Amino acid sequence: MTPPLGALLATPLSVVTAGVDLFPEALRAQGVTVQPVDWRPPAFGDPQDLAAVAADPRRFPANRVATERILAAGAELVNVRPAADALELDRDLFLHAGPPIEFGNASGPLRGALIGAALFEGLAADPAEAVAMLDSGQIRLEPCHHHRAVGPMAGVTTASMWVSELRDPINGGRAYCSLNEGLGKVLRYGAYSAEVIDRLHWMGEVLGPVLAAAVAKSGPVDIKSILAQMLQMGDEGHNRNRAGSLMFLRDLAPGIAGSDAPAGQVADVLAFIGGNEHFFLNYGMPAAKLALDAARDIPASTVVVAMARNGTDFGIQTSGTGDAWFTGPAQTPDGLFLGGYGPDDANPDIGDSAIMETLGVGGFSMAAAPAIVRFVGGTVPDALATTRRMYGITVTENPAYAIPVLEFRGAPTGIDVLSVARTGILPQINTGMAGRVAGTGQVGAGLVKPPQECFEKALAALADRSRLHR
Amino acid sequence: MTPPLGALLATPLSVVTAGVDLFPEALRAQGVTVQPVDWRPPAFGDPQDLAAVAADPRRFPANRVATERILAAGAELVNVRPAADALELDRDLFLHAGPPIEFGNASGPLRGALIGAALFEGLAADPAEAVAMLDSGQIRLEPCHHHRAVGPMAGVTTASMWVSELRDPINGGRAYCSLNEGLGKVLRYGAYSAEVIDRLHWMGEVLGPVLAAAVAKSGPVDIKSILAQMLQMGDEGHNRNRAGSLMFLRDLAPGIAGSDAPAGQVADVLAFIGGNEHFFLNYGMPAAKLALDAARDIPASTVVVAMARNGTDFGIQTSGTGDAWFTGPAQTPDGLFLGGYGPDDANPDIGDSAIMETLGVGGFSMAAAPAIVRFVGGTVPDALATTRRMYGITVTENPAYAIPVLEFRGAPTGIDVLSVARTGILPQINTGMAGRVAGTGQVGAGLVKPPQECFEKALAALADRSRLHR
Repeated sequence: MTPPLGALLATPLSVVTAGVDLFPEALRAQGVTVQPVDWRPPAFGDPQDLAAVAADPRRFPANRVATERILAAGAELVNVRPAADALELDRDLFLHAGPPIEFGNASGPLRGALIGAALFEGLAADPAEAVAMLDSGQIRLEPCHHHRAVGPMAGVTTASMWVSELRDPINGGRAYCSLNEGLGKVLRYGAYSAEVIDRLHWMGEVLGPVLAAAVAKSGPVDIKSILAQMLQMGDEGHNRNRAGSLMFLRDLAPGIAGSDAPAGQVADVLAFIGGNEHFFLNYGMPAAKLALDAARDIPASTVVVAMARNGTDFGIQTSGTGDAWFTGPAQTPDGLFLGGYGPDDANPDIGDSAIMETLGVGGFSMAAAPAIVRFVGGTVPDALATTRRMYGITVTENPAYAIPVLEFRGAPTGIDVLSVARTGILPQINTGMAGRVAGTGQVGAGLVKPPQECFEKALAALADRSRLHR
Repeated sequence: MTPPLGALLATPLSVVTAGVDLFPEALRAQGVTVQPVDWRPPAFGDPQDLAAVAADPRRFPANRVATERILAAGAELVNVRPAADALELDRDLFLHAGPPIEFGNASGPLRGALIGAALFEGLAADPAEAVAMLDSGQIRLEPCHHHRAVGPMAGVTTASMWVSELRDPINGGRAYCSLNEGLGKVLRYGAYSAEVIDRLHWMGEVLGPVLAAAVAKSGPVDIKSILAQMLQMGDEGHNRNRAGSLMFLRDLAPGIAGSDAPAGQVADVLAFIGGNEHFFLNYGMPAAKLALDAARDIPASTVVVAMARNGTDFGIQTSGTGDAWFTGPAQTPDGLFLGGYGPDDANPDIGDSAIMETLGVGGFSMAAAPAIVRFVGGTVPDALATTRRMYGITVTENPAYAIPVLEFRGAPTGIDVLSVARTGILPQINTGMAGRVAGTGQVGAGLVKPPQECFEKALAALADRSRLHR
């Protein structure tokens, strides 16, 4: 099939070049027709794996189906009730953020939150007893994600905590998340002092029941609609939830006031929600999980359906690889610190909240929230550039989550493992920072990326499946 | 003093040019050193007037004092009570938006609102009787601005309407504004059907007293702080008040719930405020008036302290010219229409709400609210360009009102009559559009500018005073 070299040189040359400009320039100088192609070598990944995944004819339609389901998904808050009920959680089973982990490998904030939860549940009388029960396996640990739930930061969710239940009216799923405690000294950042445990009791005795009554009275709250409007109001839905929290308050305030709770409790609940500009995060996260769960288990799809961190490992899951986690060491965020804290105080990345970026909001939609640079660091042009960069590793754009300053372009949606490997662009995550010492609480907020390793492993697993299918 | 022409030509030439590029290019081609200056002839205004004002040495320090007072001003909501009380309004004195006008010259929406107010006050039994009383002068008309008040659209404010009272803790002023009725068929857009009058009664009997009780319980509400935060949340404070209205609801919800009102009224008030995304406009406007009133009456200051429209005339006032109004015919806004309405249905520009642009927000800070183009028309780049253009006619920037996407640049503040005349750039106003037929209500929202005439007249008056002082 190869033409003889003589024939090649006897006809006018027409050359396609890739790489440095020197080649096409040298050829043009010799009067040769040149078509330069902007091709770059893949940034990482085994070449055989890249080729196997790229050549799989099922990939394109599979990713289309996956992202269509993400875009179509709805999210309504339909109930608030104890996790024992909603998730059928036994008292000795503690859920946590991120991929699976044993207590012995847990970092400070996860240890602190687990200790606090054991105290809150009345399983242990003091931190030492809690540690003993956790160490011995008397208290068992499983990821939230394995129970259709998500939890911010340590994400520790136990039987007596009240959780919200969200329903996807389109794809039919359910997802769950705990109630947000506010900032500072809170369980999810690893604090477990008396004020933390007392607040959790108040949340179980007053906040949860009042919210449940308000939802029953007002009817389902359209969480997807609030997320969409947030992006028009300077929130990105992960580290900035100001407008979202206010809209949630607006939607439920009449139902809260109309509940049978005493006037003092009504005023306390309104003040608690109104005083916590992150309150909505715990509704945005299960809304994102609903959309991404709808995109699971599509053979050959290279779309990421979960990114989550337990404070030690960063893990991702893809649509085409079932329940497998692909993990690497969690990085420490770079950002701004509260009070006297500094980089040495920060724990590595933790929490299920990277589900927001997996959906295409959070760090992916930073352009919608330029004011966030005052909270996570960086500059306004960085924020705009970050969103533009994320279009390079995503399959589609979500018109429901339109970014006004980008002329209403939809949020970059459907992270493609193959595009990440080809470009070397890693997903950008906005996140809170927990103190690395158990019991500290929040120390700051910043920017972080997953380790490349997660995507290398996911690519290899996807390649194995593509080879098996061939 | 003039050197002889021979001496000029005997030395090397060094030339300063202004105007078209042809001049410096021709000189450069002949080896002459050229310094082009980007000077343009003034866009409008009598040359003698321009010269007199520009040469007044008091102007620069006067404008500095004026804008320092605007920047320093605070705004707190301290009370809500009937206008009869707060403004000592007699029942037969009706306040209206814009510069002074007689009933015979009033356009449809102002006529409609005045008729509705006469019905609401029980002064007239039907519209015909109301018209007779207004025509005969039995009901008197005065501008809101003459009573330390402002009113959106028709701005009609009468004795039985409840108004909020704002205090400027820095400069010591007070300003007043009615309560916002919502959108559509409402008095301020000229509607006066039974539903409009009934709503006004409910506002006087329930909304006003409950808000008064909530303010008394919660303490003063910092309106300036809400305005500042709105600009970080996609509002521009004139035609987009979504985040502002939500923050106001958040701040007062516990006080509303804790008032002695029956639970049903509490829920109704929370739902009414929550259902009206323009509710905050009626707090932003008196906050702006407080700041601009503090800048009044500074001799030789060319800063605009009010822009207001009565639906027939557009009027401005400047710091250096006391209570004089400089008027021209109000223009009809260009924008987007509700339902089946179109440009022929729109009344010329109306309302005191251009006080927001006078402060530097609203149309001047459109860059902070790119999503507003879906409401008032235009494109996102237009919105950014509009704010950038307004820096060309303003004296300073307000760091309290920072615009995130412009890297937190402060809002363009302190409209300078001289700069407007020199550049020909007219202030950009975002506004609602009322139906031109009395009784219609809102037909759309859009963009509008003052007539150039207002600035020509103001310049002439400022020039007269500068000449007298010389």
